[in-house]
Amino acid sequence: MKKPLIMVTNDDGMSAPGILALVEVAKELGEVVVIAPDSPKSAQGHAITLSDPLRLHRVDVFEGIEAYECTGTPVDCVKLGKHVVLKDRVVDLCVSGINHGSNASINIIYSGTISAAMEASLEEIHSIGFSLLDYSWDADFEPCKPFIRRFMKYVLTQGLQNCSLLNINFPKLSEEAFKGVKICRQADARWIESYVEAKDPRGQKYYWLTGEFTNPDKGEDTDIWALENGFISVVPSGHDLTKYEALENLKMLENGLDW
Amino acid sequence: MKKPLIMVTNDDGMSAPGILALVEVAKELGEVVVIAPDSPKSAQGHAITLSDPLRLHRVDVFEGIEAYECTGTPVDCVKLGKHVVLKDRVVDLCVSGINHGSNASINIIYSGTISAAMEASLEEIHSIGFSLLDYSWDADFEPCKPFIRRFMKYVLTQGLQNCSLLNINFPKLSEEAFKGVKICRQADARWIESYVEAKDPRGQKYYWLTGEFTNPDKGEDTDIWALENGFISVVPSGHDLTKYEALENLKMLENGLDW
Repeated sequence: MKKPLIMVTNDDGMSAPGILALVEVAKELGEVVVIAPDSPKSAQGHAITLSDPLRLHRVDVFEGIEAYECTGTPVDCVKLGKHVVLKDRVVDLCVSGINHGSNASINIIYSGTISAAMEASLEEIHSIGFSLLDYSWDADFEPCKPFIRRFMKYVLTQGLQNCSLLNINFPKLSEEAFKGVKICRQADARWIESYVEAKDPRGQKYYWLTGEFTNPDKGEDTDIWALENGFISVVPSGHDLTKYEALENLKMLENGLDW
Repeated sequence: MKKPLIMVTNDDGMSAPGILALVEVAKELGEVVVIAPDSPKSAQGHAITLSDPLRLHRVDVFEGIEAYECTGTPVDCVKLGKHVVLKDRVVDLCVSGINHGSNASINIIYSGTISAAMEASLEEIHSIGFSLLDYSWDADFEPCKPFIRRFMKYVLTQGLQNCSLLNINFPKLSEEAFKGVKICRQADARWIESYVEAKDPRGQKYYWLTGEFTNPDKGEDTDIWALENGFISVVPSGHDLTKYEALENLKMLENGLDW
């Protein structure tokens, strides 16, 4: 049987331990090609590069694995990977991560990791974004690996129905401590933000974003609930932002101009 | 009665004719504060600046209007606008645009204009992103203005139910030629992309994104259908990417580890 083709990407760049963990699992399951940003591109959302040319360099960082660095965003990596590196070959799975830090709840909107996976799903490639709730560079990804292997195998053999992207987050626990897997909706949580205001060495004022995550959504069917209770959260995700429940109420705007 | 406070932003920068058109309408309806990027930031999606400090400069470009340029992305502008410039005052409405070019369908994902509006909605500010289907710098925004005025007035007086963000696109037509307003869902359309491959003056290879928009979604309830048929499209939008229809099928992943 032909080995499946697996594209691996992330937003932290090629030297992040998280992507190495992902490559190690992926190479047991298929032919792996890695395309990642040439510098950290966290919180880049679904940014793409339109006004500038992109560069692509082959690099030799993972033993025996074809890997490329790209000057663009995580989403650029997926586009270049699909159309230039892989010359539009059929990709069986795209995996992005493992991100150093949470992409649960509203973080999906800002996340370069998940935006890359979403771009793959827009290119009709089944895809999974993986994140571990540990922001440190030397986070321990070992406990996640057996689960990542199973998730990847599941999607490679069973495919995905009614969605083409999974947003999977791991709590920071040992393998034995995971309570299990929860299929969830995205929690309706928020960042409460503020800015640190200071002066640079030249005396010029600057602002630096800081914030605190807050979750008013107390549903027990959310990714935040799952993670806080020791479960691995899986949110089937898409790209349709329509709020269908608001359509009816706005219909009156279609009636002439007396509004 | 207190004048409503309206925050105006965009992704094309302060010198774009589109934002001038929006300011001209907004200042008839309320107190206006403008915060926009200091250079064009198209297709920046929901990118935010975490690893660098941001700068903010007061500028005098719109007669009698308080306006600021920011070194960050459109989403950074909204955050800085709300927390630093407006010191967390209650903002009654945020409007973003008028974008030079379409943000209908899947373009909402990549759009800096709509991401800025979405960020405002995440900050619990009712918001509207406006776009005109004309990419040229000297696009004629005059036909849109009476409608923009009505949309803004509607949201300021009636508020929004079940959503806090409207994605509004105008077809490139004269005012009399608009067929009316359609409340729509986001079309499930795609970009079919490729890269121009060439060499720079130093002989180094580069890649530049190009693409063609394609719409396999033939529903007559979509924004693309509305725009192609001469209507102004209004899509009530949100930030929940969960694909609820996929939850059931994945439930088996919760059952032990025999998958």
